[in-house]
Amino acid sequence: MSLDLSREAFDEISSQAERLVFEYFAHIAERPVMAPNHAGKTTAAINVELPLEGRPLEELIAECRTVMDLSRHNGHPRFFGYVASPSTAIGAYADLIASALNANITCWRSGPAGTEIEQLVVRWLGSLIRYDEDAKGLLTSGGSMANMIALLIASRRKTGVEASRKGLWNAGPPMTIYASEEVHMSMAKAADILGFGRDQVRVVGCDEKLRMRVDELVSHLTADRDRGLRPFCVVGSAGTVNTGAIDPLNEIADVAREFDLWFHVDGAYGAPGVLDQRKTDLFAGLERADSVSLDPHKWLFVPVDAGCLLFRDSAAAAAAFSTEDADYIKRHGHADDAAFAYWDYGVELSRRFRALKIWLTLGYYGVRRLAEAISEDNSLAAYLGEIVATADDFELLAPVELSICCFRYVPPNLRGNDAELNRLNERIMAEVQKGGRAYLSNATVNGRFALRACITNFRTTKADVEETVQAVREAADVLSH
Amino acid sequence: MSLDLSREAFDEISSQAERLVFEYFAHIAERPVMAPNHAGKTTAAINVELPLEGRPLEELIAECRTVMDLSRHNGHPRFFGYVASPSTAIGAYADLIASALNANITCWRSGPAGTEIEQLVVRWLGSLIRYDEDAKGLLTSGGSMANMIALLIASRRKTGVEASRKGLWNAGPPMTIYASEEVHMSMAKAADILGFGRDQVRVVGCDEKLRMRVDELVSHLTADRDRGLRPFCVVGSAGTVNTGAIDPLNEIADVAREFDLWFHVDGAYGAPGVLDQRKTDLFAGLERADSVSLDPHKWLFVPVDAGCLLFRDSAAAAAAFSTEDADYIKRHGHADDAAFAYWDYGVELSRRFRALKIWLTLGYYGVRRLAEAISEDNSLAAYLGEIVATADDFELLAPVELSICCFRYVPPNLRGNDAELNRLNERIMAEVQKGGRAYLSNATVNGRFALRACITNFRTTKADVEETVQAVREAADVLSH
Repeated sequence: MSLDLSREAFDEISSQAERLVFEYFAHIAERPVMAPNHAGKTTAAINVELPLEGRPLEELIAECRTVMDLSRHNGHPRFFGYVASPSTAIGAYADLIASALNANITCWRSGPAGTEIEQLVVRWLGSLIRYDEDAKGLLTSGGSMANMIALLIASRRKTGVEASRKGLWNAGPPMTIYASEEVHMSMAKAADILGFGRDQVRVVGCDEKLRMRVDELVSHLTADRDRGLRPFCVVGSAGTVNTGAIDPLNEIADVAREFDLWFHVDGAYGAPGVLDQRKTDLFAGLERADSVSLDPHKWLFVPVDAGCLLFRDSAAAAAAFSTEDADYIKRHGHADDAAFAYWDYGVELSRRFRALKIWLTLGYYGVRRLAEAISEDNSLAAYLGEIVATADDFELLAPVELSICCFRYVPPNLRGNDAELNRLNERIMAEVQKGGRAYLSNATVNGRFALRACITNFRTTKADVEETVQAVREAADVLSH
Repeated sequence: MSLDLSREAFDEISSQAERLVFEYFAHIAERPVMAPNHAGKTTAAINVELPLEGRPLEELIAECRTVMDLSRHNGHPRFFGYVASPSTAIGAYADLIASALNANITCWRSGPAGTEIEQLVVRWLGSLIRYDEDAKGLLTSGGSMANMIALLIASRRKTGVEASRKGLWNAGPPMTIYASEEVHMSMAKAADILGFGRDQVRVVGCDEKLRMRVDELVSHLTADRDRGLRPFCVVGSAGTVNTGAIDPLNEIADVAREFDLWFHVDGAYGAPGVLDQRKTDLFAGLERADSVSLDPHKWLFVPVDAGCLLFRDSAAAAAAFSTEDADYIKRHGHADDAAFAYWDYGVELSRRFRALKIWLTLGYYGVRRLAEAISEDNSLAAYLGEIVATADDFELLAPVELSICCFRYVPPNLRGNDAELNRLNERIMAEVQKGGRAYLSNATVNGRFALRACITNFRTTKADVEETVQAVREAADVLSH
């Protein structure tokens, strides 16, 4: 009954998979960013019957090839949508090793080596982004999960175990969260899931650089406190997903201290940007955060999924998932490292050995090369910013803080006509995406529809940026006929 | 700045990783289940400096070998702790391919092929366990996440979008959940995280076969309803993690209908057990559940992480994560398959392409072989049950329903002395684990400390079961001297 294989059968899988993967890495730039596609095309191209008997490997690999062909290629040098990045061979092979070992990193006793590697990687990440050289935390599936866990920790710090046991209905007046209008949508979603309610997220306005207005934050806080509500958490962004803006972290940290709030920083996309020496100052105050999210699967080029939540006060974190108060845990908990359990710090029980691919990526390339790739991304976004700022037919819509550039195409006859420009640029985006030469997504900046390029890609060159600008012009040209 | 590699460098990674993985699969049975270990041993054996420059591949692979050596080997033929299973080469290589492609399965537009494969795999899983041939749902990191999502969907079905917007504090009286005392700990944790509170989980007693007592369920429901609380969800187990008991699903479904409850079945471990023809009848009523959790990374031998939540009413599911009511979504939603987004159905935004490894595992082996491996696991647990039930020095502590056997060692002089037997068997478990020949975990059955063997392992043979019994006897012998 064993499912183990002969050497021959193993070699067949291994060599076929290796060929698939090598070809994919070697030829990704020659593909369209996205092949023509429609819902149902993939399942129409493969065998969809539940297989009662095993099928020949060649058939399965051929179908894998179809799946790859019909995927969007996030690692393509001109893929600039959302926040996506190429993975590397070392990261991908790390996932092979993790899946063969099949450790489940629930706790030290069950995954001793994996737990220690994860603790090490978390410390490395904390020191890498200049948050804390002795950071605690855990790896997650991504920023949404990290942000949700942060919010839970922050709330239980305020309520103690009361809320854990009795529920929010029996744990005092509503608790409120503060974040700028540019914050990631995962914050409102987390507030919903955790039972706080989306209305309990106060939306703080932004300045002209799309950074949180701290005076407005204080007004919201004062008003809520006066109404008897319980403010418990403020969220700053270290690189918003829309424009890459970094909130004034030091000022927010001051307010957090004054109002006794947990200060969470969402750096899921942007935090590794601190590795670019030219950008380091923008992140001042990050080290004062109570917790920080960052996604190694974004700007550290690690395969999905690899998110991370960093924090310093592990007793507060453990208290959020326990039926004991943080003080109790501080006194009695975790003297024994062998008793360490990740289920005390997060939602998941089963946990993939995500640390392996981060550990091997950092080890194989070293921080210096990763920092160079990140800095180059920032330079390329700045380069795109210069092109569109100086061209007659383009307009830059937001400052280029990190590696995101928001702009729009502005033909002379539509100058000043926001409504028409919004319509046109939305159509341009769709046309560019369809063309397969480049991929831009969008953002709304001060009510304007922006073409948005997020460059978190070590394959991108200046020529790719130029070709993307050209693709936009050609799309506009097609649409005008 | 590119991190891409030369053919030579790629081949080096690929051949070294392949060797590591092949050797691991080929020699796993010769290893101790767990090598002697202590907290800090792994990090003491590797370079823990944050690497500023890249390190030689051989060094990294050597450290990987250390990490593997110091891991617990869940795929070892005598690993019977918790619920863990071996992975296969096809599953592990599927993870390599997924990580090279690096698709992010957020929605159809971003991961078109991956979304279609996930929808297909979910349908396959629904039909495989005889839940629903047209099942909807999503893959998760495991059972904890699937159970939490199920609870959220169930609750929002009751409150509508009111709770999503205003929070639980403003959405009526407390809502209550019902599950047996044998239910997985993730249910109470989910109730805590979602803001309901652990106290809102009513613990229903069990019969002598450790199945939920439905009369007691009805008493709880009636009492809570009379007190003005709002019962909204009942959770049945299709294979408890302690003993493998399957709750009377049909009777629970009747009660759920009568009290207008969402009926969730936790089959994270046990649901694939239905593939054993001898066990199918035990699962009668599973098809009436509103949602079912099952973990392909448990009894379908897929690498961690691969959990799944199945449901039928996708509008109710989407409403839980949206600011619209289910009726609204039914009328207006999802006519366009290309608009399908997984963020409407779960917590995660970034989502690994988990479907690939499930799809390839099913395709490579076919259902019949997987069903044989599952049936064989059930037979082996029954075999262990017979041995301990008929031996003078053992006692069977719970019926062997699926592939879990709970028993204890009973030397003649301690017969009837539960307190001493509990102490002795706890020490035996530690001694067996330390010895490395076999690995048992524990369960508490009617207040008794049980040695617990969960056999979800295609490598296990009768000889392994016998050797495990022998290891227990020898551990007892060592302890008696």
